[in-house]
Amino acid sequence: MFDLPIQYAFDHVGIAVASLAEGKKFYEALGFKEMHVEEVVTEKVRVGMFELANQARIELLEPMSEDSPVAKFLAKRGPGVHHFCLRVADINEAISKLVASNIRLINDIPRPGAHGCQVAFVHPSAAGGVLVELSQPPKGEGLA
Amino acid sequence: MFDLPIQYAFDHVGIAVASLAEGKKFYEALGFKEMHVEEVVTEKVRVGMFELANQARIELLEPMSEDSPVAKFLAKRGPGVHHFCLRVADINEAISKLVASNIRLINDIPRPGAHGCQVAFVHPSAAGGVLVELSQPPKGEGLA
Repeated sequence: MFDLPIQYAFDHVGIAVASLAEGKKFYEALGFKEMHVEEVVTEKVRVGMFELANQARIELLEPMSEDSPVAKFLAKRGPGVHHFCLRVADINEAISKLVASNIRLINDIPRPGAHGCQVAFVHPSAAGGVLVELSQPPKGEGLA
Repeated sequence: MFDLPIQYAFDHVGIAVASLAEGKKFYEALGFKEMHVEEVVTEKVRVGMFELANQARIELLEPMSEDSPVAKFLAKRGPGVHHFCLRVADINEAISKLVASNIRLINDIPRPGAHGCQVAFVHPSAAGGVLVELSQPPKGEGLA
């Protein structure tokens, strides 16, 4: 569609829900048969994942305790999109570009994410009111 | 990742912004060189699109007038994710499944969208607080 070198892929959208059991009903109604669940203990969140056809996912985020960041999001804003994640070939290069443009980051050094990914978050104030995650897959895994 | 027949792909995330010129700065900082802009006159919205590597897009939504649905969203909630869109092989089948599960829809009959797509919106109250668009591409175009 556009004649550009594309360095980014859509990885997932993260949706804050009070309950995975409730949140998954819409996706089950669409025909998704099984939700893969992982606990991210450091973030105090239980993640329910639905895989999509183009190497992208929907992730439902259920807080595991009241002091979970997702619990605070729910208390303040109710259920809805918590963040989305762009998959990037070189996260250090992406961070350098953002720093050079004075884009406000939450993490200016990548940190370990799930599945061996390196991740960094951009501040919502710098990205149209949206919390954006950047994620570099382990070496050898392509973007799309 | 999951052994499932996958009938859905991630199509785009739509982000409400007061100004495309402001909203695009983050993406330009990441290295996106060109934003493709279209006006959707029926929705009174100017759409700035960035194409991603896995047949997905980011769409920035700028209201063209104060009575645009996106203007109302911005006034109520500020900038942020307005909706996301799942690409589906058969939108009538998807709607039938949702109706059978008593999922609340905004459109229970598909209507014409951009690029020859047929689209329908699911009510946010039925989908974890998120406005979800379903979109069936023109015949012959695959999901991913």
